[in-house]
Amino acid sequence: MALAARRRRVQEAAAAVDVDVVLVTPGPDLRYLTGYDAIPLERLTCLILPADAEPLLVVPELERPAAEATPAAELEILTWSETDDPVALCLSRLGGEVTRMAVDDRMWAEKVLRFRDALPGTAQVAAGHLLTEQRMRKDAAEVEHLALAGAAIDEVHSRMGEWLRPGRTEHEVSVAIERGVLASGHQRVDFVIVASGPNGASPHHAPSRRIIAPGDTVVVDIGGTMPSGYCSDSTRTYAIGQPSAAAQVQYDVLQRAQQEAVESVRPGVTAESVDAAARDVIDDAGMGHLFVHRTGHGIGVETHEHPYIVSGNTQVLGQGMVFSVEPGIYDPGRQGARIEDIVVVTESGSRRLNNRPHELVVL
Amino acid sequence: MALAARRRRVQEAAAAVDVDVVLVTPGPDLRYLTGYDAIPLERLTCLILPADAEPLLVVPELERPAAEATPAAELEILTWSETDDPVALCLSRLGGEVTRMAVDDRMWAEKVLRFRDALPGTAQVAAGHLLTEQRMRKDAAEVEHLALAGAAIDEVHSRMGEWLRPGRTEHEVSVAIERGVLASGHQRVDFVIVASGPNGASPHHAPSRRIIAPGDTVVVDIGGTMPSGYCSDSTRTYAIGQPSAAAQVQYDVLQRAQQEAVESVRPGVTAESVDAAARDVIDDAGMGHLFVHRTGHGIGVETHEHPYIVSGNTQVLGQGMVFSVEPGIYDPGRQGARIEDIVVVTESGSRRLNNRPHELVVL
Repeated sequence: MALAARRRRVQEAAAAVDVDVVLVTPGPDLRYLTGYDAIPLERLTCLILPADAEPLLVVPELERPAAEATPAAELEILTWSETDDPVALCLSRLGGEVTRMAVDDRMWAEKVLRFRDALPGTAQVAAGHLLTEQRMRKDAAEVEHLALAGAAIDEVHSRMGEWLRPGRTEHEVSVAIERGVLASGHQRVDFVIVASGPNGASPHHAPSRRIIAPGDTVVVDIGGTMPSGYCSDSTRTYAIGQPSAAAQVQYDVLQRAQQEAVESVRPGVTAESVDAAARDVIDDAGMGHLFVHRTGHGIGVETHEHPYIVSGNTQVLGQGMVFSVEPGIYDPGRQGARIEDIVVVTESGSRRLNNRPHELVVL
Repeated sequence: MALAARRRRVQEAAAAVDVDVVLVTPGPDLRYLTGYDAIPLERLTCLILPADAEPLLVVPELERPAAEATPAAELEILTWSETDDPVALCLSRLGGEVTRMAVDDRMWAEKVLRFRDALPGTAQVAAGHLLTEQRMRKDAAEVEHLALAGAAIDEVHSRMGEWLRPGRTEHEVSVAIERGVLASGHQRVDFVIVASGPNGASPHHAPSRRIIAPGDTVVVDIGGTMPSGYCSDSTRTYAIGQPSAAAQVQYDVLQRAQQEAVESVRPGVTAESVDAAARDVIDDAGMGHLFVHRTGHGIGVETHEHPYIVSGNTQVLGQGMVFSVEPGIYDPGRQGARIEDIVVVTESGSRRLNNRPHELVVL
């Protein structure tokens, strides 16, 4: 969808809930609405989206050429120099009474509070809900971008045998993977989790100096951002030689759970029903207490976004929604395992955007 | 300084301005105060620093082991599971009346507003000023971390001839540099600017498909974060073969300006006087209109922090302050140049933490 149309939809959503202006600073919302991947810094860059007037972009003078080299060039651009007050510049163009302003969900507190102090009589609300509907439902071009991101991260997983070897530390392996993520066409590495042996029981483990040993299972969860702005995120679990019997038993349960959850995805079912599809398999195997997180999260221009695949979320899934299906089983002190694919809701079911083998890959 | 002492100083600063509690979410402040480099995500992780009680750390259940693998393990840690309300959990431990809460400068708006909605009668202020004094004055260990960061990024600049060649695009060169930044010991690449020919006139240019050609000057501004959490940031300008006479004339002015500014640094002078030292040289050469940004910024656990070396900043410099000195001359449509070193204020003057040659390096 054209960027101007995206902006108009936000303006319409704002008008519908009596928000007079939406302020968007660098981050995924700004990139989604303008195509400008601005550097998030202390200097104020801000898209001003009035409910009923033309948008404009405020940028530091030194970043005008950077902004103009992007699709944001189609906007009116105002600049401020190092000794100007950028908040005053923004306010000078708001016009009229501002009763309610919405600020993008990721705006830094320091900027939120500067706008609040400059307009103490104005109510502030989070802008996220004004963008959720359109960001959550991907059009064909966005699905294609996410499919390319999925293929790129699959390529990195396909090379894991080059890097993941006994005798190396998790940290050494993670550095090699980072290079692989860049070599696969990603613009940026967003995260690399290499969790070996007992560290596998920590879902968000930071790569450590632990030396990978024969018999370990290793959870590798990696993702980055493509030049398109769309993100990848995929997890596979590897075994260094023969895994323990317990690890294999848990893995087989996990693989069934992930498969059941993916198969449950289709238009009309709820987000929480997909979570339940995975959780029921693990619960039935008596391992429910080892599955300590939700089943997934939406993904797009942000790694984590709506819809969240979690108990209590009655959001009905519809065509074009894209999210992870990533149950895990974490056995403290022993090992952990997770399998994660990104899936897109199609007209009648779902399509996986990650397609590496789902079995426990023995390296 | 021990992390507990850092936290106590923030608590004392809070008490002194009648702030009852300081809330710190993932980012440089959290890392500075706890040693925990938590992943910034939608799930709430929050250090609670009451002015007059023990600190505690709230983390998602799935991240408890990750938090406990860091120095944050010395704190009391509370966890919440996927279907709990983490804000309610935080409030349950605040106790008593909260008249004023401070939120870290980088807290996401969405979280700021959730805390505000949960405690509508409580004033919110930005926490930055409670940390500025101690973050700005680095102790010997911090200076050593920054010196190591400086040496690492110098090593990347020393390899520029391997990558920066005519016929390659800026983007290709930037990808190679990113790998070099990781290979030099950085944990993370924070930014890579490769601005060739006329693109050099855009201070924050994003690497493009422009093909680097003989006769170009190329501004290369790169930085990353070391495993210590401390950041690097250094710029050099390169010439691909013989530069134009105009580019060389501008460069010579710039080099003198940067040298003058570095030489002006010592305890007792103001931040703005260092800016003026650079600016005067460029003004005197009739090029003042081409120097469109401040002279520098502090650096530590964040690439940009206090003190800012900018006109109007009367902050008196003192021993242990660390900042960039990076004047630039930007000639729209033609070329640009910038020279950037990180310097630390010593007992009697300053010390450069970047030591690559300052001349226009012809490759």
